[in-house]
Amino acid sequence: MTEQLLTIQWKNDKLVLLDQTLLPNEIVYNEYESLESVWEAIRVMQVRGAPAIGVAAAYGVYLGIKDAPETSFDAFWEVMQKGTDYLATSRPTAVNLFWAIDRMKSVAIDHKTLPISHLKERLIEEAIEIHHEDEEINKQIGENLLGLLKDGMGVLTHCNAGALATTKYGTATSPMYLAKERGWNLKVYADETRPRLQGSTLTAFELYQAGIDVTVITDSMAAVVMSQGKIDAIIVGADRVAANGDVANKIGTLGVSILAKNYNIPFYVAVPTPTIDLETKTGKDIPIEEREKEEVIKGFGAYTAPADVAVYNPAFDVTPAENVTAIVTEKGIVRAPFAENLRALFA
Amino acid sequence: MTEQLLTIQWKNDKLVLLDQTLLPNEIVYNEYESLESVWEAIRVMQVRGAPAIGVAAAYGVYLGIKDAPETSFDAFWEVMQKGTDYLATSRPTAVNLFWAIDRMKSVAIDHKTLPISHLKERLIEEAIEIHHEDEEINKQIGENLLGLLKDGMGVLTHCNAGALATTKYGTATSPMYLAKERGWNLKVYADETRPRLQGSTLTAFELYQAGIDVTVITDSMAAVVMSQGKIDAIIVGADRVAANGDVANKIGTLGVSILAKNYNIPFYVAVPTPTIDLETKTGKDIPIEEREKEEVIKGFGAYTAPADVAVYNPAFDVTPAENVTAIVTEKGIVRAPFAENLRALFA
Repeated sequence: MTEQLLTIQWKNDKLVLLDQTLLPNEIVYNEYESLESVWEAIRVMQVRGAPAIGVAAAYGVYLGIKDAPETSFDAFWEVMQKGTDYLATSRPTAVNLFWAIDRMKSVAIDHKTLPISHLKERLIEEAIEIHHEDEEINKQIGENLLGLLKDGMGVLTHCNAGALATTKYGTATSPMYLAKERGWNLKVYADETRPRLQGSTLTAFELYQAGIDVTVITDSMAAVVMSQGKIDAIIVGADRVAANGDVANKIGTLGVSILAKNYNIPFYVAVPTPTIDLETKTGKDIPIEEREKEEVIKGFGAYTAPADVAVYNPAFDVTPAENVTAIVTEKGIVRAPFAENLRALFA
Repeated sequence: MTEQLLTIQWKNDKLVLLDQTLLPNEIVYNEYESLESVWEAIRVMQVRGAPAIGVAAAYGVYLGIKDAPETSFDAFWEVMQKGTDYLATSRPTAVNLFWAIDRMKSVAIDHKTLPISHLKERLIEEAIEIHHEDEEINKQIGENLLGLLKDGMGVLTHCNAGALATTKYGTATSPMYLAKERGWNLKVYADETRPRLQGSTLTAFELYQAGIDVTVITDSMAAVVMSQGKIDAIIVGADRVAANGDVANKIGTLGVSILAKNYNIPFYVAVPTPTIDLETKTGKDIPIEEREKEEVIKGFGAYTAPADVAVYNPAFDVTPAENVTAIVTEKGIVRAPFAENLRALFA
């Protein structure tokens, strides 16, 4: 297998999504021709990952208006308004969903004087543009990370900040794909990432499909591979980066950062700049979602502990800025002092 | 549930074992009246854990000779020899199995002049003695550990060095049971311990059954509970302690020790003295078994990664002595310098 799977494609006026609910056991592409079917795909997580949801939603908005009346803007707008309101209910916590919908609506309003048929063309162009931008951002993050790596290195990642969560390269995985394109051999270790195993079902899956050298380990094996000198860099994504450089990411990231510090291994966080939230002062201001206990003690069917036992299941943790070697964005590489240098990125 | 389950009992000339292959979903006690049935119980791991296997084997040896001819020692010895040879094949890598068999055989030889009916009595007394010794050793380890803890503390453990692997108190779990007996409230966090989940299926199970306050977390959550100040001490068991204080234990222990060091939390290793091997100079001399990849990527039925992906699955890791606060044995508490102080333990 050496063909990278594409999460999202736009083909013949149809949206094509890789059905992520069937991974890693089945590879199925579904075609979507209506806003309602895109709503469903987002809802049931056939498409997942913030950037990917945003791009799918942009195409969904277009599918919702492509047959709208062309008699007047008002008649057109009524359909668009109704469709986007509905699409917004598919995954109410996904910020990129609203961002994509708002961007599509702004384009419509900015071009309300165009003939409606032209406006529709403008909107599909915008969706394609959103799609390409995501690809470009991720590619640039990968290029910047590649400047920190060398051929032959061992790299460890946690969870899935991969192509499956975005449109093509992913964020943390981007340098792995680019290294492959230029003939480098990176040896990737993927933490399986309990409790939901995104490292195993998604990261290991997508890298393996692309012919990249990837080895699955349990989260508890990260220390031993580091102790054996197999890891030259850690690369993870992030759900949010605070103004002081604290990083909220999938549970387990904090532990990996402490192990990396212990073994003097650089710890890189790969993020598009919108993930950096200067309004969030420190990691303490980031609420940590707790999820249901069954993810931990009934992950695969039968209970693996007494059903009534207490379980603590935080979905995220916060890695303090002092454990972070660099935050790598599409706009450049940010190092300590983070408060100052992150602010400069937006200046 | 506030009744501790007993792994091994000797009742009315029968061995009673808790069937550990059915945990945590079913609690079934089986009775064994023959050496052959004990052989089977060890073979299929209805009883597991080095000390528990030793004790079960001692009773098995007795069951094998209780109906042996009483006409002459030679006739008796033929039955005993044949039975113990057979019992030794049940789990050929279990050192305690051979140790218990040899001890029972030595007793028979030392008392060969006794009437056989008396010799048989002497042998069941020896098996019961082996059983009690294990209980006493573990209780003393627990007492020694308890001197390092206080009521109300949070304690984290990894894997199962529990009552289910021994006869009553376990090693790492011993202070938890003793604390409960004296009315203390320890708050125990049990790492689930991937890939085989012994922390969840065994440790959390046995502590919950005994009415001890236990919370299951994934291995990747150990860092976050430590960062929240919930953990005052780490207590783990060991498969082998080297002469310099390096500790081989279940995979993931090394990572926990590094996290503990990062948060200045004491890291205690609970072991009976026979687990300390002065012949093994350092951790580098301990071979690390690698197990099959399916434990990691097919732990619960379906594959959770591509079946052909590379997997690294070491069963153990080595925690360097510098990460260990104290090694707690039935003979006392050993601190650095370990090379010197471990040797003194055997002087």
